[in-house]
Amino acid sequence: MATAAQPVVLDALFHALADPTRRALVERLTRGPASVSALAQPLAMSLPAVMQHVHVLEASGLVCTEKVGRVRTCRLEPKALRMAEQWITERHTLWERRPDRLGAHRADPSDGRASA
Amino acid sequence: MATAAQPVVLDALFHALADPTRRALVERLTRGPASVSALAQPLAMSLPAVMQHVHVLEASGLVCTEKVGRVRTCRLEPKALRMAEQWITERHTLWERRPDRLGAHRADPSDGRASA
Repeated sequence: MATAAQPVVLDALFHALADPTRRALVERLTRGPASVSALAQPLAMSLPAVMQHVHVLEASGLVCTEKVGRVRTCRLEPKALRMAEQWITERHTLWERRPDRLGAHRADPSDGRASA
Repeated sequence: MATAAQPVVLDALFHALADPTRRALVERLTRGPASVSALAQPLAMSLPAVMQHVHVLEASGLVCTEKVGRVRTCRLEPKALRMAEQWITERHTLWERRPDRLGAHRADPSDGRASA
């Protein structure tokens, strides 16, 4: 099956997005870069807990961080977001072009076992 | 932060997509419905192991299954795929329209820390 495009990267990307706090952090960073303490402010969460989420986002490539003095600033990496988006969009397109939708040779298009 | 749109659904959707086998199953189902045994065939995996992945996909809403006699047929649910796609696309769009990009007060548009 054609999932050759960086499976490990996609694992990490989708894993990072599977948590509501991490999605909230991504959401905040779409408005521009922010320090970890600014990210933590609206969340009912300790700074170390937020840092853990930031680490997961960083490992996935969705966020990059830079420390200047005592301030760690986080920035969204749109390339990673685009990669996740692309994987889903491509599957959606494949589904829309699927043989049982286009072809008329199958007796029952709701059953796919003939071609499986 | 505006992640009100069914956070639990998105948790399950992205969690389901975070596994390479489950993405391979989704990939296969973009070509049309398939029985669990047909899904298992190209994978070096037992039928119960495949069923576990199918259960996760089903719980996320990405796949629905129907059992007729002894055959369970799986079908992709494009609505769920579209929901995950939509969340990412919206964040991507927000990022492209972020204030620090639209404003002209910054010396270097590749560096976003000024507004943090």
